[in-house]
Amino acid sequence: MRAEAAYDELIRRVREEGLLVSIEALLEWDEETHMPRGGVQNRSEQLALLAGLVHERGTDPRIGDLLLAVEGSELAADTESAAAINVRELRREYDRYVRLPRTLVEDVARTTALAQQAWAEARSAAEFAGFRPWLERIVELKRAEAECVGYAAEPYDALIEDYEPELSSAVMARLYDALRRELVPLAARMAGASRRPDPSVLRRAVPVEGQRHFGETVAAAVGFDFRRGRMDLGVHPCCTGLGPGDCRIAVRFEARDFAGGLLTILHEVGHGLYEQGLDPKQYGTPAGEAASVGMDESQARLWENHVARSRGFWQHFYPRARALFPEALDDVSLDEFHFALNRVSPSLIRVHADEVTYNLHAAIRFELERALVSGTLRVADVPEAWRAAYRTTLGVAPANDAEGCLQDGHWADGLIGYFPTYTLGDVFAAQLSARAEQELGSLEEQFARGEFLELVRWLRERVHRRGGRYPSVKLIEVVTGSPPDHRPLVRRLKEKYGLLYGLSG
Amino acid sequence: MRAEAAYDELIRRVREEGLLVSIEALLEWDEETHMPRGGVQNRSEQLALLAGLVHERGTDPRIGDLLLAVEGSELAADTESAAAINVRELRREYDRYVRLPRTLVEDVARTTALAQQAWAEARSAAEFAGFRPWLERIVELKRAEAECVGYAAEPYDALIEDYEPELSSAVMARLYDALRRELVPLAARMAGASRRPDPSVLRRAVPVEGQRHFGETVAAAVGFDFRRGRMDLGVHPCCTGLGPGDCRIAVRFEARDFAGGLLTILHEVGHGLYEQGLDPKQYGTPAGEAASVGMDESQARLWENHVARSRGFWQHFYPRARALFPEALDDVSLDEFHFALNRVSPSLIRVHADEVTYNLHAAIRFELERALVSGTLRVADVPEAWRAAYRTTLGVAPANDAEGCLQDGHWADGLIGYFPTYTLGDVFAAQLSARAEQELGSLEEQFARGEFLELVRWLRERVHRRGGRYPSVKLIEVVTGSPPDHRPLVRRLKEKYGLLYGLSG
Repeated sequence: MRAEAAYDELIRRVREEGLLVSIEALLEWDEETHMPRGGVQNRSEQLALLAGLVHERGTDPRIGDLLLAVEGSELAADTESAAAINVRELRREYDRYVRLPRTLVEDVARTTALAQQAWAEARSAAEFAGFRPWLERIVELKRAEAECVGYAAEPYDALIEDYEPELSSAVMARLYDALRRELVPLAARMAGASRRPDPSVLRRAVPVEGQRHFGETVAAAVGFDFRRGRMDLGVHPCCTGLGPGDCRIAVRFEARDFAGGLLTILHEVGHGLYEQGLDPKQYGTPAGEAASVGMDESQARLWENHVARSRGFWQHFYPRARALFPEALDDVSLDEFHFALNRVSPSLIRVHADEVTYNLHAAIRFELERALVSGTLRVADVPEAWRAAYRTTLGVAPANDAEGCLQDGHWADGLIGYFPTYTLGDVFAAQLSARAEQELGSLEEQFARGEFLELVRWLRERVHRRGGRYPSVKLIEVVTGSPPDHRPLVRRLKEKYGLLYGLSG
Repeated sequence: MRAEAAYDELIRRVREEGLLVSIEALLEWDEETHMPRGGVQNRSEQLALLAGLVHERGTDPRIGDLLLAVEGSELAADTESAAAINVRELRREYDRYVRLPRTLVEDVARTTALAQQAWAEARSAAEFAGFRPWLERIVELKRAEAECVGYAAEPYDALIEDYEPELSSAVMARLYDALRRELVPLAARMAGASRRPDPSVLRRAVPVEGQRHFGETVAAAVGFDFRRGRMDLGVHPCCTGLGPGDCRIAVRFEARDFAGGLLTILHEVGHGLYEQGLDPKQYGTPAGEAASVGMDESQARLWENHVARSRGFWQHFYPRARALFPEALDDVSLDEFHFALNRVSPSLIRVHADEVTYNLHAAIRFELERALVSGTLRVADVPEAWRAAYRTTLGVAPANDAEGCLQDGHWADGLIGYFPTYTLGDVFAAQLSARAEQELGSLEEQFARGEFLELVRWLRERVHRRGGRYPSVKLIEVVTGSPPDHRPLVRRLKEKYGLLYGLSG
């Protein structure tokens, strides 16, 4: 088989598989935003059928033959060419996929579909007992998955790699240790600071329709392209790429959480800008996809934390917000608003956590998951281990399992090994924004002038357009000159919060 | 092969194919209501892929084997059983489908997805030229389709049969001739009548949000189940069944066309009631589907014309509308409103046509399409032929192509042979409502009391629950005692409009 012909067929097949995946994404987006309740049974049948079709295509031995015909050929010689990137990444995906028996894949799909219902009920009842057998089964299935896929040091490695290629449990453990050493004392210093924000200013009622309008205006101002995307209401905020030119953001609003709603929008817009910045010519192939889940998360966290929690951003937007929502904001100064938005306070729920304690939540989850998968922690002991870890790390303890180990649906979804991507997102975001500042000058000053597109352009060129050219750990080095490094994140948090809270030295 | 086992496998396969078709329907609904413009290219690829997958399944020779194993068995002996219905209809579909090459099916899907954009642009520019090559290609593809499928008398027969089994061009031509003979002089008498409605009362501004709220209230009152359906804004009104429990209506509102918006809602609700009335246990098989496109249209036209244009309906709803929109309606009496709603006036655009001239629009389209497909009319000559036909039949002529042959997207959609179903819809609706009156007593009086559910129940039992048990031409005979018959429609129009316009005898 000639390499060129093999490559063409490979890409044709991969794009077709990608089309099916983009159809799945639309079905999930629709379920999240529009589907009436009565549609749930048929929707699960539709999704199961598509998952089967994707598996059938992804494990076709023909793909292995085609890869063999291209690998080592002239076509893949330039390692930075689209062809070489695609062959490298498709080989990685194929080797992983064919090791997973279809029965296991189906079992995971079926179990996690049902586990979500069980989790939602257990959380309502604030009782881990109802979810325990499901989590036991899921941990068992994910361990089986790890055994099928194979790993260097421990089974949890195989699960992490599904989201972040070339990353290991040991590397993440060192990263979390370093962050714990820095962030636990930093949070403690703020708890003892005399200067304190007033969080009640963010709990004033702001009309939901107005929030939506303001959010869309901000999203457009920072570069989200509404001709190639849209924003809808959804129960769980998310950003879904449905193909080049069709990126959908789902967000939610609460009258008494204007700031939280806007941070969520900027988070999802961050994902959306990455999606809209990918090379449409490479759509459906790894060269036209995000480098990794963690790199994707870095874009979200950059726009949420480095932009929407910055003073410069609000210098520009606060007068507009105040004009729109005078009843809520008229007697709140920019500084009060900005300080409240950046309040640091140890809490129980990750999704509401501040920038400083956020990664301590992720550290706890990482350690619990790793122990579960290695077998040193039994599922039955999770609630107690959770409480103990929160007490030790954050100094708070959940009153019940709904506030504790049942707080989110990741485990019910089978997302074990996923949490490290949240932390990598923060680490990468800090490295990227530090580098962007070196090249572009003060970002805060640009934001204060309402200038966001220079940063978008920079991210587009350095990160988005490169798609999957490098694994994330390599991409961050190419862009910033350093491998993954927690220090820019820690430096930034110390500086920012030292100033806000008036901490000395 | 045992007949039972064969039938079970057949139904399993057909339901899987049905799932793919329901996914296609969601993609189309989304394209209509939510997709950003930038998504069109990928959407066309997704739809082409699904069309190919449906084709692959629908033409699998295994289906032919399974059908042979069931046909003539005990299982299919009772011709009114679900098994017999499904075998009869699946045989019809299979025999048609296997004659169509996959490349042709995919080509039609891809071409029509792109042609819609070209049509929309051509219509904006009011210039047929931009759409002409697309229409040429589509007519060519549809002619190829007819040649593959085969036909008794002329290629257009093969296209009509795709929507209305057991119907022919010759039968439709006779029906249109009869309608022309009756309706052209009837419209002319009204044009000369001294009593005239004042159409300006329907052009008063009514807030769009209020219209939407009122429309939803009316839809619920006449029986549309919002737990198993929803209503959204769309450029082109439509009703899409996405599976049992998920029926979506898309409608549009204009401030100065309150009545038009409401008629559209009732039209789509008519489709929706049929969809929601089908037997969910038979979902995904012909026994659980509408009898035909024409029968489906009859439900829409029944609710639009026999209900929402009736005086009884407005006796009940007009006081509510007036209370909601006093600025527009306070000085308009019920009789003035109802007469304006039923104004007869030859016009250029079918979707805004009154009940009397509506089928003259359909007649023109039928004749033009028949000539296009047979080759006696060239695509290049369509604009002029269109103008000539409107001048002769309705006495009006479009000033440009946007008002003429570009007025709707049917051709861009590949819907050639579809127009006869609009007329059958009116013919069937008149037969059904005459029969319902015989059995239930005066419908107008029920409507005036706000009672609509008795009619829904009757339609559900006689039409909806029967699904595809009979071909439409047989179903109408089973329910009303007569085969398709234009006379109830003509009788009704003469009576209703004779009274309204005060025409003698």
